[in-house]
Amino acid sequence: MSKVDYALMYVTDDSIRDDNHFFAILEGALKGGATIIQLREKTSDTLAFYKRALRCKELCSNYEIPLLINDRLDIALAIDADGVHIGQSDMPYEVARRLLGNSKIIGLSVSNKEHAEQPNAQAADYIGISPIFSTNIKTTDLAKPLGILGLKEIRQIYKKPIVCIGGIHKDNTQEIIANGADGIAVVSAISKADNPEETSRELKNILCKTGTN
Amino acid sequence: MSKVDYALMYVTDDSIRDDNHFFAILEGALKGGATIIQLREKTSDTLAFYKRALRCKELCSNYEIPLLINDRLDIALAIDADGVHIGQSDMPYEVARRLLGNSKIIGLSVSNKEHAEQPNAQAADYIGISPIFSTNIKTTDLAKPLGILGLKEIRQIYKKPIVCIGGIHKDNTQEIIANGADGIAVVSAISKADNPEETSRELKNILCKTGTN
Repeated sequence: MSKVDYALMYVTDDSIRDDNHFFAILEGALKGGATIIQLREKTSDTLAFYKRALRCKELCSNYEIPLLINDRLDIALAIDADGVHIGQSDMPYEVARRLLGNSKIIGLSVSNKEHAEQPNAQAADYIGISPIFSTNIKTTDLAKPLGILGLKEIRQIYKKPIVCIGGIHKDNTQEIIANGADGIAVVSAISKADNPEETSRELKNILCKTGTN
Repeated sequence: MSKVDYALMYVTDDSIRDDNHFFAILEGALKGGATIIQLREKTSDTLAFYKRALRCKELCSNYEIPLLINDRLDIALAIDADGVHIGQSDMPYEVARRLLGNSKIIGLSVSNKEHAEQPNAQAADYIGISPIFSTNIKTTDLAKPLGILGLKEIRQIYKKPIVCIGGIHKDNTQEIIANGADGIAVVSAISKADNPEETSRELKNILCKTGTN
């Protein structure tokens, strides 16, 4: 795979069950300039997840944008996704690498500096600092926000791409990039926007000005 | 793989979160005569599922009993399980077969005669009639019980092994086998038994007398 652009990752919003709505937002994100997509489905059954993944893959391929699958290696393998994003409670990194092979992207969530120092983080293609700020997204495994200071600490010891997620919007994007992140990952900033395409474009413009591209 | 004995399938109880308790029951089922194990985890995260699966595999290997994974092909691949059991809302059969290869067991849940007539059921290694009777196990996808009449109807059109699940205990096992099933699958009959090993042995004795072995 050619060099991956982690600047603007749109992580899909699994609270949106209506497919028309779901894919309209995804297409808006792509049109507006998302550089990578992560499909995240935490509550749907495997068949529904697989069907969404197939359709996401088709859409992302049209825009030549890589698609990652959150957590589920079986879905990633089934649709030949570009990679997976795994958390600290998902499949161990070395097992994920064995199943996916060396040509696929594997990103790993880290919630503190100790996570980032582990061999699995060092071996991953990128890390996601999660959460960087507090967020309204309901998850069961949310750690304390790391903030800009936490990002700076991790940047000093981690040489590969860093993507930040959690409570990111237009007004704090610049600060994140200025302090060493290679990109931002957003859910609700785009999925709940009045105009996902326009918001995606605005975020992209801020990222370009701040220097990720 | 040599001929699989579907007579007594113990499906693990994911309501039991304590590992010591969980594996004591599993070992009781194996000692008592379970012929095949299905690991079913519907609520745990991937890492916890993977860890249980690894330990299940070691235990089943000690007893030379095959281990199937419910739904999750990634877990099955990660631990090199003997196969998977998939439902109508899980990965499509043909995708599961492509990912697992021809040497692994794939069983498919069917809830009516129409399901059993589908190409995926005909291609599967066995079908699980679910539910045969009403059950107290909480699941989100429970169809109307097929009963003995439903089993007899499906037996007439399905030539491969049939396993029944749902509300099965010592007092109705004989009737299920006498009407054409190759085996029974149980959760609570064993997991909630005062003595899982003894209950497993009693079920096995009924199955042997009725002629599955």
